[in-house]
Amino acid sequence: MQSPVALIPQLAGHIIAAGGKRLRPLLTLASARMCGYQGRRHIGLAASVEFIHTATLLHDDVVDESELRRGLDTANSLWGNQASVLVGDFLFSRAFQLMVADGSMRTLEILSNASAIISEGEVHQLITTNDTDTNEQAYLEVIEGKTAALFAAACQIGAVMAERSADEEQALRSFGTGLGMAFQLVDDVLDYSAKQEALGKTVGDDFREGKITLPVVLAFERADADEKAFWRRCLEEMDQREGDLPHAMQLLQKHDCLNDSLERARAYGRNARTAMDVFPDGEIKQALIDALDFSIERAY
Amino acid sequence: MQSPVALIPQLAGHIIAAGGKRLRPLLTLASARMCGYQGRRHIGLAASVEFIHTATLLHDDVVDESELRRGLDTANSLWGNQASVLVGDFLFSRAFQLMVADGSMRTLEILSNASAIISEGEVHQLITTNDTDTNEQAYLEVIEGKTAALFAAACQIGAVMAERSADEEQALRSFGTGLGMAFQLVDDVLDYSAKQEALGKTVGDDFREGKITLPVVLAFERADADEKAFWRRCLEEMDQREGDLPHAMQLLQKHDCLNDSLERARAYGRNARTAMDVFPDGEIKQALIDALDFSIERAY
Repeated sequence: MQSPVALIPQLAGHIIAAGGKRLRPLLTLASARMCGYQGRRHIGLAASVEFIHTATLLHDDVVDESELRRGLDTANSLWGNQASVLVGDFLFSRAFQLMVADGSMRTLEILSNASAIISEGEVHQLITTNDTDTNEQAYLEVIEGKTAALFAAACQIGAVMAERSADEEQALRSFGTGLGMAFQLVDDVLDYSAKQEALGKTVGDDFREGKITLPVVLAFERADADEKAFWRRCLEEMDQREGDLPHAMQLLQKHDCLNDSLERARAYGRNARTAMDVFPDGEIKQALIDALDFSIERAY
Repeated sequence: MQSPVALIPQLAGHIIAAGGKRLRPLLTLASARMCGYQGRRHIGLAASVEFIHTATLLHDDVVDESELRRGLDTANSLWGNQASVLVGDFLFSRAFQLMVADGSMRTLEILSNASAIISEGEVHQLITTNDTDTNEQAYLEVIEGKTAALFAAACQIGAVMAERSADEEQALRSFGTGLGMAFQLVDDVLDYSAKQEALGKTVGDDFREGKITLPVVLAFERADADEKAFWRRCLEEMDQREGDLPHAMQLLQKHDCLNDSLERARAYGRNARTAMDVFPDGEIKQALIDALDFSIERAY
């Protein structure tokens, strides 16, 4: 993230220092090692994966007009939307420079495809925002694009670096997809959950932004006429009042929407775990499965 | 620009159909042919260059809060900033997918470097905006990054495709750099010129946005105390009133700033022309030199 233009390392440093789980680069590092890769290329490629993710976070915060991320002021609230858009572009370019330095056309293919699919998913999400008619399939397509595609690519390139078979590449891709889907589903559940509040994070961001996540899709399908009117007022007309978020959380409980969403997450988790059967048991495989389990269990 | 997410081809189609000179892809096509390249790869790579440019235009219009481009509503004014940021990201990814499909690591290197430098230039421009202490060197660095880098890359990859010598690659790079610098200098002059008005384009966009271009850098250096106060009020404090733009244009005339800026453009143009001396005369070389001449002469 170095640059003679000082604002770039400042702004990029802010969002990177803010932390986060670093789950995506971890997947690249662990997948490569599990596949027996012994070199140093996995480090640059893991950084490349994280830069793509960081660029999308910077742009997401502009798109969502977010003021807080991980408890800190967002880059856009500190330096303005303009700087966030442009430094996001810079990190995105840097990610490709890292891939070029790595020198594998196959990896460039996988990650440029993932990048295109991420933006498609983000645009798709933008279209479903404020649309209470969004169904489960549309929601799943959105999160497969915006989240699971990069998880899948992050895992797959581990097998590519180690020159493993197409079957093993596909197995790691499936693991990443299942993990990514489960991860995003749990994220979307936590946004309405008391557990999130206990962790000191804000609750209801998706609600305030009018995002239609699976808990809301299910609640709307199961709603009576009054409840449908409530969801439409809050999420389509964006007319939100005191007490609306607690009421929304109550409706999600009443119709068991959080539990049912978690059940979907668990099902994706089982798919991910099964995909790993082609690899022999070992410490790193176990670490990847532990990351999967953690991604789901953090909801409790 | 195809995608199952309909908003993507809609928005991308809008900005692409709006026209423009298509100068950058033309440079790639012509450079390749001048270097004797006979295949079809130049088409995909020219599209890749234009997609990088289109992505930066979408993001620029968000950053500048522009409402009009080439006489039409901007994408951000029609579909919102969010969609423009994300579709820009999509086109940027597509550019890299096209490069991957092309299969040349060298081209990927040249264009990923150019992309990083473009964003650096854009961030640098953001920092100099509203700063009347910006000097000529800082201005030249900004336009070399935001404009000339892609012109240089667009020309250079023509020589790379044709597998020409490092000298010829560098010659085309120098031609592109000189052309890009001249092109942007002339653009910045036209923004304050009656010629621009005669062409039916808006005048004073840079002034209204507080951008510090070379005409203003020169006018500020040559200003007396009252004039300095005027530039500071308009461009730093952004306190602009009726009659300020005509007064600014008058000051630029008084200090001969437009002519002196054009003189810089002509000097870059001469550098660009000299760089072409390594290539034998011919129809396509002449077309490239005509494009250079046009870029400068359009100021009259």
